[in-house]
Amino acid sequence: MIDMTREEIGQMFAESLIGRLCMADTDGTPYSIPLPFCWLDGALYLRLPLTGRKGEVLSRNNRVCFEVDAFKGGLEDYASALVEGRLVEVTSLEEKERVKSANDEKYDRLRGGHRPGHGRSTPLSALPMRKIVVTQLTGKKKEPTAAAV
Amino acid sequence: MIDMTREEIGQMFAESLIGRLCMADTDGTPYSIPLPFCWLDGALYLRLPLTGRKGEVLSRNNRVCFEVDAFKGGLEDYASALVEGRLVEVTSLEEKERVKSANDEKYDRLRGGHRPGHGRSTPLSALPMRKIVVTQLTGKKKEPTAAAV
Repeated sequence: MIDMTREEIGQMFAESLIGRLCMADTDGTPYSIPLPFCWLDGALYLRLPLTGRKGEVLSRNNRVCFEVDAFKGGLEDYASALVEGRLVEVTSLEEKERVKSANDEKYDRLRGGHRPGHGRSTPLSALPMRKIVVTQLTGKKKEPTAAAV
Repeated sequence: MIDMTREEIGQMFAESLIGRLCMADTDGTPYSIPLPFCWLDGALYLRLPLTGRKGEVLSRNNRVCFEVDAFKGGLEDYASALVEGRLVEVTSLEEKERVKSANDEKYDRLRGGHRPGHGRSTPLSALPMRKIVVTQLTGKKKEPTAAAV
């Protein structure tokens, strides 16, 4: 495995529908949920209401990581990246607008223009947007192997 | 989203190349790594040497969860499951042999007979096998939607 560059990680994030938000409860129990996401300007944005178990855990501990991986046919073409940091609420309407546009662009592109409508009509002020303020960003990919002969 | 049955979860595990092991350090920092896995007899098995950061975290706290998801074309056909429990070492050679056979069968099937050799020649006694002793198994899938008209 070799380290990915920040550009390679950003490229993978732009092509990935889903990543997994990982959190840890105060008794040391980890918890993880898959979520769509938007990587923009060095932060990772999520539509994330603090409901249910995730809401309870995150209200006690906002340290999180977010894992994204990509692999094709078997496990020969393989990469994964990890975003680590603190999860904070996004309150700025300007920031929400900017992220919402980038997010809509991403998922329209990846989903071929299919627009399920989820969240599209939510007023920005009510959109439960959170972001990971990144303290560490790492990625690894499989080293290219020599062509089989 | 609707709950998956244990059978549906097992079926998804049998078809999934990769899941993500999530752990939590004692300071509340979550950490996650993608791994191949083998689900057998109600436990989740991993080839996992306790090296590097994961080894340090897991030596301090063996509570883990393992997330597996499956989605196709956009996010309309979607399922995810979470295994929670404690990670313990597998020392029984009989158990290791049984898991190794099941694991080889799974990855031969999923990878079309491609055998990269990784771990195939490791003596069982030296195979760093660990398992999650499961305390909770949950899965959710997207409710089928009515056909578009």
